[in-house]
Amino acid sequence: MSSELKNDRYLRALLRQPVDVTPVWMMRQAGRYLPEYRETRSQAGDFMALCKNTELACEVTLQPLRRYPLDAAILFSDILTIPDAMGLGLYFETGEGPKFENPVSSMAAIQALPIPDPEQELQYVMNAVRAIRKALNGDVPLIGFSGSPWTLATYMVEGGSSKTFSKVKKLLFSDPEAAHLLLDKLADSVILYLNAQIKAGAQSLMVFDTWGGVLSPSAYKEFSLHYMAKIVDGLIRENDGSKVPVTLFTKNGGQWLEDIAATGCDAVGLDWTTNIADAKARVGDKVALQGNMDPCMLHAPVGRIQQEVQSILEGFGYGSGHVFNLGHGIHPDIDPEKAGAFIESVHQLSKPYHL
Amino acid sequence: MSSELKNDRYLRALLRQPVDVTPVWMMRQAGRYLPEYRETRSQAGDFMALCKNTELACEVTLQPLRRYPLDAAILFSDILTIPDAMGLGLYFETGEGPKFENPVSSMAAIQALPIPDPEQELQYVMNAVRAIRKALNGDVPLIGFSGSPWTLATYMVEGGSSKTFSKVKKLLFSDPEAAHLLLDKLADSVILYLNAQIKAGAQSLMVFDTWGGVLSPSAYKEFSLHYMAKIVDGLIRENDGSKVPVTLFTKNGGQWLEDIAATGCDAVGLDWTTNIADAKARVGDKVALQGNMDPCMLHAPVGRIQQEVQSILEGFGYGSGHVFNLGHGIHPDIDPEKAGAFIESVHQLSKPYHL
Repeated sequence: MSSELKNDRYLRALLRQPVDVTPVWMMRQAGRYLPEYRETRSQAGDFMALCKNTELACEVTLQPLRRYPLDAAILFSDILTIPDAMGLGLYFETGEGPKFENPVSSMAAIQALPIPDPEQELQYVMNAVRAIRKALNGDVPLIGFSGSPWTLATYMVEGGSSKTFSKVKKLLFSDPEAAHLLLDKLADSVILYLNAQIKAGAQSLMVFDTWGGVLSPSAYKEFSLHYMAKIVDGLIRENDGSKVPVTLFTKNGGQWLEDIAATGCDAVGLDWTTNIADAKARVGDKVALQGNMDPCMLHAPVGRIQQEVQSILEGFGYGSGHVFNLGHGIHPDIDPEKAGAFIESVHQLSKPYHL
Repeated sequence: MSSELKNDRYLRALLRQPVDVTPVWMMRQAGRYLPEYRETRSQAGDFMALCKNTELACEVTLQPLRRYPLDAAILFSDILTIPDAMGLGLYFETGEGPKFENPVSSMAAIQALPIPDPEQELQYVMNAVRAIRKALNGDVPLIGFSGSPWTLATYMVEGGSSKTFSKVKKLLFSDPEAAHLLLDKLADSVILYLNAQIKAGAQSLMVFDTWGGVLSPSAYKEFSLHYMAKIVDGLIRENDGSKVPVTLFTKNGGQWLEDIAATGCDAVGLDWTTNIADAKARVGDKVALQGNMDPCMLHAPVGRIQQEVQSILEGFGYGSGHVFNLGHGIHPDIDPEKAGAFIESVHQLSKPYHL
């Protein structure tokens, strides 16, 4: 498989096949910490204009790969493209998170939501995937992604980000039928969206469940994990003779790793609140693991970063099945030199674990 | 013990002695969801003026007990009184969290921090404890509290609340010696502060580690749990012939319950992301458990609240050792009727578990 790729470490690690060193990429590796990103974004205008401009979205996706020997590229886009395509009106206010002009909360509003056609309302995403895949020229694999149904629903019902998630949880607890209809429509939309990304050239997929960890264990299983499992079941998983691995990542989901692994996904993303040795002992015979350095560690001196990389590598131990990453996106105020030292140290220090 | 108390269920449950029904109280039970609290607070002026006014702090502490058959009162105060007494200048801006005028970050600033004398700079807290204890007249026990050293340090270094905790984590990872000095001074201050609360009349203590869950497992043990264990070791634990139980609560600490229980505390607080049956199986032979309903459940219809209470009671199972609570503070927008229905349902539905 992936014989046309010059570097397929990332895909091999997800499928737990032997690798020479542990592959590494960074969530939000194309982003504000890079001066060249800030330059391109200022050309594009606002954030969504950048996502919708095929040439510029491709450019920012490739920028971190020109600086660092990363083992994967990830589509530059937003997790909230699907609700935007449903007509909710995504916008960004400076210094605040994403917002929706038309949040939903009633059964009637949920029933009226359309399922977006990925090659129509979301064609700009597919155009970006095709352009990036072509520009990568087989150097490294391209990761496509989506937000999880639950995570999308939190923004759609709250109208933006939230500290308490009162509105969306009120919907869960007061009108579970409406909540399930919303989540089911979102799961169907995500399946179409991710399968279209595969057809457009994505070689691996990741589902970001940023807010699954704000739920109780039973609510998590009923309202978040159930719909991620539906997505895993509905994905193509193999394209052009190559497997398309899928990674599920619930932030603050460390207590539920066994349940996440049982969905049939290929890999589970870990934030930094879980010890990777414990995680491997719990689920490492079923899935690969991605993670899990605290993004704040990139504020530390290089020696301390190397020490933390060493500790995580040692925690995972010998053999394949580990994709190194941060436990969440890289922060905008990180020095790009520190990111480079981090990536280099993963490759250097992981060699003894793959002899 | 506690023979002078008319209702000592809360203390008995913490010490895992038989009770007739499961005791219940609510974090932030004196607060903005109550119209009488909003009225008293408008008299006092700002939040800290209310904390520092003995009569009014006593009044708001008692308000929820007039409405509901709660099994404990909790001192009305703030978790940040100690850094304020150290000279950092605590203030509150409308619609935002607490802030400090003089955050600390350098070794020199940390070395210069004084250890506050509880009967001097924090005498207003002790006066409130004495007044509340007298006004309670033995109806229910009074809980004293403090923030954990790590949680206090996050606000002291960041200058307020934070999304990423970049500044305080940078201190941990770049200058661990300074971080440890700060945390050690805070632990010493908390020990003096809580022991003074016991002497002033507090019959149980709680340490709120609101931000322990943002750390990696090893950083949590080194920078948060270690100092809570020091506090547990330094507390009086028995006063006037009665045991003074201590509860540790790390929000998002569900992965580390065994470590928390091993400090020698009497009880462990649970947020709603942990299943209480699992928690009991993991640590229930060592400690009592407090929790753990999602505060957002109080937005649901009463029937759904009762169903959730039933599910948590069933999860804990038969016998003593459970103090019912929310998994975090009650939200300001909760209908007081719903809070009443919640409290009543704990008492009613728990009877069969104490036969």
